[in-house]
Amino acid sequence: MQEEVRGPLTGIRIIDLTSMISGPVATMMLADQGADVIKVEALSGDLVRGAGPNRSGITSTFISSNRSKRALSVDLKTDEGTEILSKLIKTADVLVQNFRPGTLARMGFGEQAVRALRQDIIYVSISGFGEQGPYAHQRVYDPVIQALSGLASIQAEGETGRPKMIRTIIPDKTTALTAAQAITAALFARERSGEGQHIRLAMLDTMVAYLWPEGMAGFTLVGREVKAARAQLSPDLIFQTTDGYITAGAMSNKEWQGMCKALGHLEWLEDERFKTVNDRAVNATERLNLTAQVLATDSCAHWLELLDAEGVPCAPVLSREEVIEHDQIKANDLIHEYDHPVAGRIRQPRPAAQFDKTPSAMHRHAPTLGEHNSEILLELGYPADEIEALQQQGVLGGT
Amino acid sequence: MQEEVRGPLTGIRIIDLTSMISGPVATMMLADQGADVIKVEALSGDLVRGAGPNRSGITSTFISSNRSKRALSVDLKTDEGTEILSKLIKTADVLVQNFRPGTLARMGFGEQAVRALRQDIIYVSISGFGEQGPYAHQRVYDPVIQALSGLASIQAEGETGRPKMIRTIIPDKTTALTAAQAITAALFARERSGEGQHIRLAMLDTMVAYLWPEGMAGFTLVGREVKAARAQLSPDLIFQTTDGYITAGAMSNKEWQGMCKALGHLEWLEDERFKTVNDRAVNATERLNLTAQVLATDSCAHWLELLDAEGVPCAPVLSREEVIEHDQIKANDLIHEYDHPVAGRIRQPRPAAQFDKTPSAMHRHAPTLGEHNSEILLELGYPADEIEALQQQGVLGGT
Repeated sequence: MQEEVRGPLTGIRIIDLTSMISGPVATMMLADQGADVIKVEALSGDLVRGAGPNRSGITSTFISSNRSKRALSVDLKTDEGTEILSKLIKTADVLVQNFRPGTLARMGFGEQAVRALRQDIIYVSISGFGEQGPYAHQRVYDPVIQALSGLASIQAEGETGRPKMIRTIIPDKTTALTAAQAITAALFARERSGEGQHIRLAMLDTMVAYLWPEGMAGFTLVGREVKAARAQLSPDLIFQTTDGYITAGAMSNKEWQGMCKALGHLEWLEDERFKTVNDRAVNATERLNLTAQVLATDSCAHWLELLDAEGVPCAPVLSREEVIEHDQIKANDLIHEYDHPVAGRIRQPRPAAQFDKTPSAMHRHAPTLGEHNSEILLELGYPADEIEALQQQGVLGGT
Repeated sequence: MQEEVRGPLTGIRIIDLTSMISGPVATMMLADQGADVIKVEALSGDLVRGAGPNRSGITSTFISSNRSKRALSVDLKTDEGTEILSKLIKTADVLVQNFRPGTLARMGFGEQAVRALRQDIIYVSISGFGEQGPYAHQRVYDPVIQALSGLASIQAEGETGRPKMIRTIIPDKTTALTAAQAITAALFARERSGEGQHIRLAMLDTMVAYLWPEGMAGFTLVGREVKAARAQLSPDLIFQTTDGYITAGAMSNKEWQGMCKALGHLEWLEDERFKTVNDRAVNATERLNLTAQVLATDSCAHWLELLDAEGVPCAPVLSREEVIEHDQIKANDLIHEYDHPVAGRIRQPRPAAQFDKTPSAMHRHAPTLGEHNSEILLELGYPADEIEALQQQGVLGGT
């Protein structure tokens, strides 16, 4: 596959030196939006190529983090390799890297060296913890940022107070989105000023900023800190029915009236504990326990129909296999199947944001290691026999 | 306060008709980056003004979702009110709204009407579920998207299989980031083409796309679906010590060697269950239980020092109050205190992405309802006495 590229970032070239998730998912988003993203990998390739479920040697996570990109595999410890990257940088608008602080400079591609090759480049450094401080030297894993940012505390169990990890890599992926936005903003600014710049982004900073609006609401007003958020101690909005789990929430008075009606308990409307929005918040545990007792007596379909008819926001709690088949997901034309040349039949979601004039879409399949070595070197002006020789010598990796 | 504005989006004006979180956090990010964001509210104001911890009537969450913006409060059910919004749209680059599908068109500001006022405007519609399908009519709350997107299933308890909600509003805030990136991309594209467009973004689509790279790794390869992810059933990476909780992770062989050494159990290196990365994944529960038993015997500080010395990624699990005081957060100069004119002393994180040439920063405090009515109407050419009259008549809200 190779669809016509018409996304908002068409015409932009990004040299992507990142690995794992925080960088690759950022550049995938920009690639779906039309940027020509060249993923540059060492001869060993991005570690994600070998992690998790796979078919014919290509993993699900690699497929879903690197689509729409081209791949170049090159040994940057050779002179010929650094020469190739230098030539590539001269053609680029953006360089993104997520090595530990200082590593890329030691490899000869610090900001000054890169800017000498391409004056107006946007140079992007993604780190785990920042460039200084007690954690700057550590290799970063997602759970470490969950621990340091307060996210694991926010998810603590109500009864025991034991912190809990979120079982999806929120810090990695939120950093990817934040990086994609920042790169795009710098491209906009360069369009007006002609000037490139350096963007620095730490996963830790990203998560604290992301959690802040409500997650840190108790620490925003100095001198009025709320030590233990009451809401955190109450049950969550998941209810077991006779055949599965649903969620249902009644915030406004109107929604609460609808819920009492749907559940056949109009007397709750007269209950002093539940009169106002604030009363219902203060007595959340009692309210949710009463609700749970009623919902446990019949099926998901039964309750969802009654609740929706009364204007109460509600939904089934879907398993991952149910998500793919759900009518709302189908109405949104969200999940598509493709034939990947190596991995076979795959599922991918289209990009979430839909642009009516510059559509964003998956333009290419996630590449094999070094898949576009020849194509890219030919574009840089290397003769075919020299490319062949570089591949033979092991300066270029993959096949 | 009103710092000099030099962010990458300086010169862009955004009319922000959104409320709650998904829209306001998106436009706050763009406002921190220099856009002139005018928050347009009904006379009753954004509901978030009244929700949660507050001081002098302004809430933490409002403060942390609406900084750097100006505020106009206007009754759009009056002719004078729609006239004001029409004049404002003529001056704008972007209009963002997160009403339920069709609502804003019924108020007279659908895309066609708005484009008639400003031909090249970027019109942004954020919805909960999409514009069609079985849920399109529902009011959206964050837990409903957690349920429908599979997020609550991903967080299911290992022992009981009961789904769990994440106790921070991931769908709302992830939609905000995705919207901010899309708006910025459309601004970039307009800079080159001169053309505006319509961006549509559903919270449900956002979350499925966000979860996909690893959260849906088991459903990416058609015909090789993984029904229950093994990893989900193993304990998470949180360990109780004698005086608190820490996280520590050993993925590579080198890190595993470091962990065995730090924990004083070099014999684990010879254990058949833990020889390779794959062995350690297959036997994760046994490995984590053994690790937990050792870590339970001494303090956080003791273990973190030993683990870090052996190159094992590790950190304390911080409470929210500890995050604010942590040395790495301080090294990053992340959290600042300000005097809000109404709420008093407040804490805010700086924007996560740091631009060296076009710094992004909090430029203004979150406004009171209608705080900039006069300023904005004077800019639109209204005479002072007419503004006064509009305020008296109740066309303008707030003070």
